[in-house]
Parts: sequence; C-alpha cells; structure tokens
Amino acid sequence: MKPQHLDFYFDYLSPYAYFAWRQIGPLCERYQVELRIHPVVFGKLLDHWGQLGPAEIPPKREFVYKSCYRYAILHGFDFNPPKYHPFNPLHALRLSLREVCGDHQRQVISAIFAAGWSQGQDIGNPDELTAIVNALALDGALLLAQTQIPAIKETLHKETQAAIERGVFGVPTIIVNDQLFWGNDQIEHIVLCLEDRDPLDQEKVAAALARARAIDRKAVAR
Amino acid sequence: MKPQHLDFYFDYLSPYAYFAWRQIGPLCERYQVELRIHPVVFGKLLDHWGQLGPAEIPPKREFVYKSCYRYAILHGFDFNPPKYHPFNPLHALRLSLREVCGDHQRQVISAIFAAGWSQGQDIGNPDELTAIVNALALDGALLLAQTQIPAIKETLHKETQAAIERGVFGVPTIIVNDQLFWGNDQIEHIVLCLEDRDPLDQEKVAAALARARAIDRKAVAR
Repeated sequence: MKPQHLDFYFDYLSPYAYFAWRQIGPLCERYQVELRIHPVVFGKLLDHWGQLGPAEIPPKREFVYKSCYRYAILHGFDFNPPKYHPFNPLHALRLSLREVCGDHQRQVISAIFAAGWSQGQDIGNPDELTAIVNALALDGALLLAQTQIPAIKETLHKETQAAIERGVFGVPTIIVNDQLFWGNDQIEHIVLCLEDRDPLDQEKVAAALARARAIDRKAVAR
Repeated sequence: MKPQHLDFYFDYLSPYAYFAWRQIGPLCERYQVELRIHPVVFGKLLDHWGQLGPAEIPPKREFVYKSCYRYAILHGFDFNPPKYHPFNPLHALRLSLREVCGDHQRQVISAIFAAGWSQGQDIGNPDELTAIVNALALDGALLLAQTQIPAIKETLHKETQAAIERGVFGVPTIIVNDQLFWGNDQIEHIVLCLEDRDPLDQEKVAAALARARAIDRKAVAR
C-alpha cells in the first residue's frame, strides 16, 4: 500500500539527524506523503535501551566527526559542529514541537539544525536559540518562554515515550508503512517503501528473527 | 600518500562485516594495496567500550535483519542468517587466522561468511566448520584441531587487544592511512583514501574534536 505519511524522529544531538532532515522534506514532497515530525530526547532512548551514544566512546566520536566532514564536502554543504557537544537539547527540542512553533515548524527545525551543525553555534543555549528564531522574523523570546510551560515539557516527554514504544532506539529514525529505518544511509530503502515496492518478504524475516540464540555475551569469555 | 595496505577487522557475528568483506577484496585488487586481515572478538570490543551489540537490543536486531535482506536483494545475493545468532564465533575466528589457514585465508573466510550469512548454517559449530573447510579441499579436521592450541587462542586475543588499542570499537572496521572507517556504508570514503584524495582537513577536525562538552548524559534529566 502506498504510504500516506512518514514519521521522522530526531534529536539535535545527532549530525546524522541533520543530514537525514536535509533529505526527508524533499522526499516527502516528491512522493506526496505527509511528514510527521517527532522531536525526541536521544539521552532517554539511550537510557531505555542501555546504550551509549557515539559521543560517549572517544574513537567513535572521532570517526563520526570525520565521516560527517567527508559527507558534507561530498554533498556540497558546510559541516561545523556545535560549539559545545554534547549539549542540553531540551530547549531546542521543545521549541521544535508543533505545539510551540505551529506552521513554522519545518522552518524553525531547519534553522536550528543549520545553526548547530553547519555554523558551529551553541544550540543548547536559550539566548542563541532566541536569536536563531528572531532571524526567521518570529518572536524568539515568546517561543522560548513556551519551552518552560509544564504542558510543553510533558509533550516532549510523551513524544519520547511513544517513540520508545514503537521501538525507536536511535536517531534519526524514519518509520514508513510500519517499517523502521535507523540512520542516514537508509534513504534508498525508504524510497522503495515510498514507491510501494519494498522487496522484503516479511515471512522470511519473521522466520529468521525467530531463530534461536546459541550464546549470550558473558559466555564468550576468553 | 597513496596507501600500501589496508587493515580489515571483522567478526562473523556481524552481517555488515560479511557485506564489507564482499567488497574489500576486489577494492584492494583494484587499487593494488595489501589486504591485512584481522579476525577479532566482537564481544570483547563491546565489553571494552561498554556497548551493546545490535543483537542485544530487540528492535535494533529486527531493523538490522530487515536492512540486510533489502541490501542483499538490491545487490543480487542471498541473505540467510546463521541458524543460531548470536553464536560462539571463537572457532571460526581462530580458523581464519593466517597462522592456521595460511595462504588459504581469504578462501576460508569467504566460505565461512557465505555459509553463515547466505546459507543459514551454524558457523558456531566446529563440525559444520569442518565440513565447510573440507568442501574447499582442505583438511578440516586438521585445521579445526589447531583452533584448540593455546598459542592460536593467544593470537586471536592479541589481535583483539591490538584492535582496541587502535580504537576499533565495532565491526567491520577498515583502517587505511591511519583513518578508521566503521561499517559497510563507508566504501565511498575509503575509495577517496585509496586514491589519495581524502578531502578531510585534519586541523579542522582536530579543532572540532577539541571543543568542550556542555553536558553529560545523567544531567539531561527530564
């Protein structure tokens, strides 16, 4: 069945979320599917699934930055990571909720992502976020004030919980036709779903996933 | 400087290591660089860096299998994961050391990978491994017996420790010209290194990596 919408889960902490964001809007327009945007707290996903983020493993952090610089050069845009990283993403995430920025949602998200990951700004800082929003000819102070309203805090929390319940374990995650895609390297597969020609044999997958485990980690001792 | 060799780190537990293995041999031939092969114990990398493997996070395991099925279909080969997964990879890894299989190393590794991830065999099982090696017209029983020699066990252990010291945190990892690449989606960037036209500005990267952290995870409380 040709999908009617696509769910996009992100946190500003991830450069790959930025890269995927740059692609997903045009893709939704091309295939005329509704883009449903879900800011989520990456740290909460990591906590839930018991994982570390790339920034918490020094050689992985270095690899990710290098990979991102190369990707950006090859794709013709600037990569310049946030002034501080990791940073507290909560203000930026709440600001990006439809409940806060309304019809300007995509514009606000694009501006924050670009400021953070192409211009090296401190997108954890409410004052910088205010300036970013002001530059869009919106009222930054007014929108930032809304990020402190308990109901808005609760909305972000609920988005994150709902994502976990759908199995979202990292960002960016894209869900289309109930198929979950993680990362920025899945666009080719997502396009197949958007064109309603996902080649997957779901029964074959289910059978493979049902195969038994032979061993668990602690048993692979030296 | 045009590289003279390329280091490939793998464990049979990873389907992406299989996919990368399929590409890396032809790539080394095309660019005439020596392929240096390093079997390593993935579980030990995870232990060292404090990470979970994809098979340890249920929705990630499902995503990985689906992604692999799609990839294999698009690339024209069979994906059929091991009969049991995770499995104990130690016999297969030791068998794949140059100290055990000598000049047949690439042939043995290709056969084990294909048996495990294209034919759904139990590559944790020494008897199945013996049959796989016998089918190459080699003496499976003789080679398998070598996997129990203490010096061979030690060699795999040392390979894994050396990988950790170079910053290897996952598999597949490819290191070329001291640049570490993780995963099967980095071939385009690896080719740039092989052609001695890596676009990376190392000073820019170092400066970005030296930027301060603003926050650590436990502080991003709700």
